[in-house]
This record gives sequence, structure tokens and C-alpha cells, in this order.
Amino acid sequence: MQIYLDCIPCIVHQVLTSVRLVTNDVQVHEQIVREVLTLLVDMDMRQSPPAIAQKIHQLIGQLSGEYDPYKEKKQRFNELSLKIYPELRRRIRASASPLETAIRLAIAGNIIDFGVNRSLEETDLEEKINDSLTSDFDKTHLRSFKDAVIRAKDILYLGDNAGEVVFDRLLIELLPWEKITFAVKGRPVINDATIEDAEMAGLADMVNVIENGSDAPGTILESCSHYFRNQFAGADLVIAKGQGNYETLSAVDKNIFFILKAKCPVIARDLGCEVGEMILRKSKAFEQEQVYVGI
Amino acid sequence: MQIYLDCIPCIVHQVLTSVRLVTNDVQVHEQIVREVLTLLVDMDMRQSPPAIAQKIHQLIGQLSGEYDPYKEKKQRFNELSLKIYPELRRRIRASASPLETAIRLAIAGNIIDFGVNRSLEETDLEEKINDSLTSDFDKTHLRSFKDAVIRAKDILYLGDNAGEVVFDRLLIELLPWEKITFAVKGRPVINDATIEDAEMAGLADMVNVIENGSDAPGTILESCSHYFRNQFAGADLVIAKGQGNYETLSAVDKNIFFILKAKCPVIARDLGCEVGEMILRKSKAFEQEQVYVGI
Repeated sequence: MQIYLDCIPCIVHQVLTSVRLVTNDVQVHEQIVREVLTLLVDMDMRQSPPAIAQKIHQLIGQLSGEYDPYKEKKQRFNELSLKIYPELRRRIRASASPLETAIRLAIAGNIIDFGVNRSLEETDLEEKINDSLTSDFDKTHLRSFKDAVIRAKDILYLGDNAGEVVFDRLLIELLPWEKITFAVKGRPVINDATIEDAEMAGLADMVNVIENGSDAPGTILESCSHYFRNQFAGADLVIAKGQGNYETLSAVDKNIFFILKAKCPVIARDLGCEVGEMILRKSKAFEQEQVYVGI
Repeated sequence: MQIYLDCIPCIVHQVLTSVRLVTNDVQVHEQIVREVLTLLVDMDMRQSPPAIAQKIHQLIGQLSGEYDPYKEKKQRFNELSLKIYPELRRRIRASASPLETAIRLAIAGNIIDFGVNRSLEETDLEEKINDSLTSDFDKTHLRSFKDAVIRAKDILYLGDNAGEVVFDRLLIELLPWEKITFAVKGRPVINDATIEDAEMAGLADMVNVIENGSDAPGTILESCSHYFRNQFAGADLVIAKGQGNYETLSAVDKNIFFILKAKCPVIARDLGCEVGEMILRKSKAFEQEQVYVGI
């Protein structure tokens, strides 16, 4: 998905939130914002929002010397998510449709996204979780998700954010783990999950966890390691979590299920849904393949 | 009041709203946004937000050829405000505190501000009006406002937006009109009121209406005509309506009453109030003068 002009205010907001985590020096804030604006003046609008965000967060790192401003927030949301994990697990087991409940919760976890929800507080989380269990949810693809997971031999699950990975674990616990590889970012960017977060969430004890070698807040294959690209190519099913992964992979020719909350008007327009909607959707390539199988 | 980094996302939003009113050509939108970003890269942060906005809206005019993108919206909100004017007038007359009710309504009218409330719909207006009649309102300065108006010999009322001028008329109807000069912008900028709007609101039949000679969405004295500056200098009381006038005049050494709704976090921080709060406040110069009189 390409970037839109409407993404620019959001990017500047993101930059302000990040630089304020790094330093209280308003002159540094101003210097970094001016550099970011300079970069935006000449940006290639055919790129995806995470491709631009990657460059911007690299720039913040270079100019401030801090490459992981969200370190503390990531840890707090990991801890908070782990604290409520047992209760959420009980809710899934007690549910009449455990898979649906686990997917709803995996989507609820997707609100822990400081790229979009910049002022998210810990106290907001439980309310959002409850909302996600009762909100409208288009279950059209639930059955084919289940079938695809059963049929697949090699599943690559692309994680999104710290904290959210605990919610991914709840879903993965209902899936055939032995076939799943869980991928995290190669280096910190915003609050995207890295290997430490997957370990903290307990995922590393369940499934094979790999790094993608990149610091883009999404999955830009050209930016990923050779090893990761091989894993991606070899997987016959990809589960891609969150906006960043949708934005970077929606046009890729691959069997992908996207699981996310549509948190901004730009992505909602691209998905043809309302802002706030919970999304479980197949990639175009997957839709076509399934039609073919049907014939 | 100087501009803050937090104003940048808002400015870009404002530009997008404006250029989309001018043309559907996304390439033109992109070109204008890139030019605006170029201007922001080097902006002088000591300037007020309306000083930057003035340059940006001049740039939009130069690049698009359209200097009055909000023409239709201004007309619609004038008409809508005039439609509800008789009912609002009745409410003021029936009120136990007509002046307070008129000031509350004048503040309610200040929501017709497409610089901040970019997606304001006509249907929102009545709800906002009702809110403003019942919301908390710090009446500390109400008495001294009344006294100042009675005492003044020459009052300059600085209007803000189209539509809103009808609400200003409701307030002016309770004041000694013969002493009031009502000022509007010299040329169109966003939905700021110009002479046509003051005429449409019926103000031109009540009070002396003058143009300030400027196209800044506030009152930047250096940008105003010599004639207006004389009027400003000669007035012994200024009533300054809206955010733009506060942002440009809050540091000016003059007896001013600011009447506005604090619509964004930046101005709320400057005023030391909550976003959405209704404000009737004296300028610092006025506070000092009154203390002196008190001695």
C-alpha cells in the first residue's frame, strides 16, 4: 500500500512522540523535526508508510543517538499483557468459539501500537479488550483461516508489537505450533516486537522465533535478511499481524492472512472498512488460489 | 503566542482540507503539500501560528489560483447561523443573565473554525450550541467585561469567522453599539470573515464595519493597513474573538478581552485550561491597568 498525503500529519506526530521520549531538549526536537520535514519534501509517494517510517526512525536514531526510545514502554506493555494473560486464556477456553475469541483477542492486542495510538495508557487496555470481544466482527474468513492452518505445512507468523506478542501467543496456543515460525523485527523501531519481546512473552519456548533482519515497522522484503526471505518464500501460509505488515505485504503475491485492527482512515479506506474495524482477511493471491482449488 | 512543533501536523491537515476544496487533482495536492513542507523546514518558530498560516494560504492561492477555497462553506454557515439567529435571540432575552448567555453563544459560534474543526458539519452546530449553554464557564471576568464596555469610549471588536459573526451580532446587540467598530479580514483566508460576511450577518447595518487590510487568520498588526492600525491604537477597549486573534495579540500591550473556545492542546496549554474550555479573559496589560486603577 502506498503512502498518502494524509499520512504526513501522523508521521510528524509519531516523530514528536519519539523525540520526546529521547530527550526533553526542545532544540533537539526542533532540529529533528526540521530534518524529517526535509526528508518528507522529497519522499517517493509510491513507497509504503512503513518504508518512510523506517527512514525517519533511522534518522531519529542517528540524530539523537537513541535507537530504542520505546524500550521502557515495550517492557511495560509486555508485563501488563503477561499479567492479564492467564485470565484471557481462561476466557478463550471457556468460550463457545475458542478460535474466534483468540482471534478477537489477537486483534485487541493490536491496539498496543505507538505508531498510531501514541497516547495509549495501560489503563486503556482492558477496556479495549472487552470492546473487542463484543464488537462486530466479519467472520467470513474464519472457516477458511482454520482450513488453511490445518492444510499448511509451514506457517510463518509475522509479529507486530511488544505486548501484542502475548496476545499472539494466545492465538498460537490454539494452532498447530509445530508448524509455526514466529518472526520479529531485526532491530528496534517504534514499539515493534524484537527477539526480547518474543522471549518475554514465552513464545520462544513454544515455537521457532526468528528475526527478520530489518528495522522497518512492517515487512519490507528487500529490507529483510536473506535468511528471513528464504523462510518467507518457503512458508505456504503467512499470518501477518498489524497495520505495518498489511501496508507492506498487501500487494505481495503470497498466501497471507492479515489480522489487524484498522486504526486510521487511510488504511480503512484501503481495506474498504470503518476505522476501528477488526480485520481477518486473505491476501488477493490467496483468494485467487482458493478459487482455483474450488474449481 | 509562538508556534509549536505540535502545530505542524495541524497545519498539514489544514492544507489538505484547503487544497481538496480547490481541486480533485491529487498531483496538485501533492505539489502544494511538498511546497508547504519546504516552507515549514525553514520556518521561524518565534512567529505565531497565524503568521505561518498566512504564508501557507498565500502559497496555496499562488499555486492553485484559488484564493477563496472556503467561499461556499462560509456562505452556508452564514445562512445556517442566520436561520437559528431568531431562536438564539429569544433564548438570550429569556435568560436570567442575558449577557452571560450572549457570551456563551458568541463562544459557541467560535466552533465554526475550519482551521481547527476541519470536518465541521452543519448538523454539529446545534448540538455544540446546546453544550455551550450548559458547560462549565469561568465567569471571573464577566463583571469586569461589563464594566470595561460601559467605561470604554471606543470599542474595537475583532471578528473571527464567517457564520460566527452572526453570534457576534447577538452579543453586540447587548452592548452599546454606537461605540463599537467591527473589524474583519481584508482578504479571504480559511473561513475567516470578510466584509461580505459582516454584511450578510447584518452587522454592517448596526455598527461601523472596517477591513483590517490583511489576510492573516488573526490580527498581525504589521500585516494590517495603516487605517486599521490607527483604529486599533485609538480604541480604548478591544474585544478579540477566536484563537487566531488570541495567538497574535496575547502579548500585545493593549486593553483586550479575549473571547474564544480553546480548541487545541497548544492553545489550551498557553491559556492554562482544558481543550474545549470556553474562555473570557483579559490581556495581561489590561490586568495590570485594572490593578493600577484599583490602587
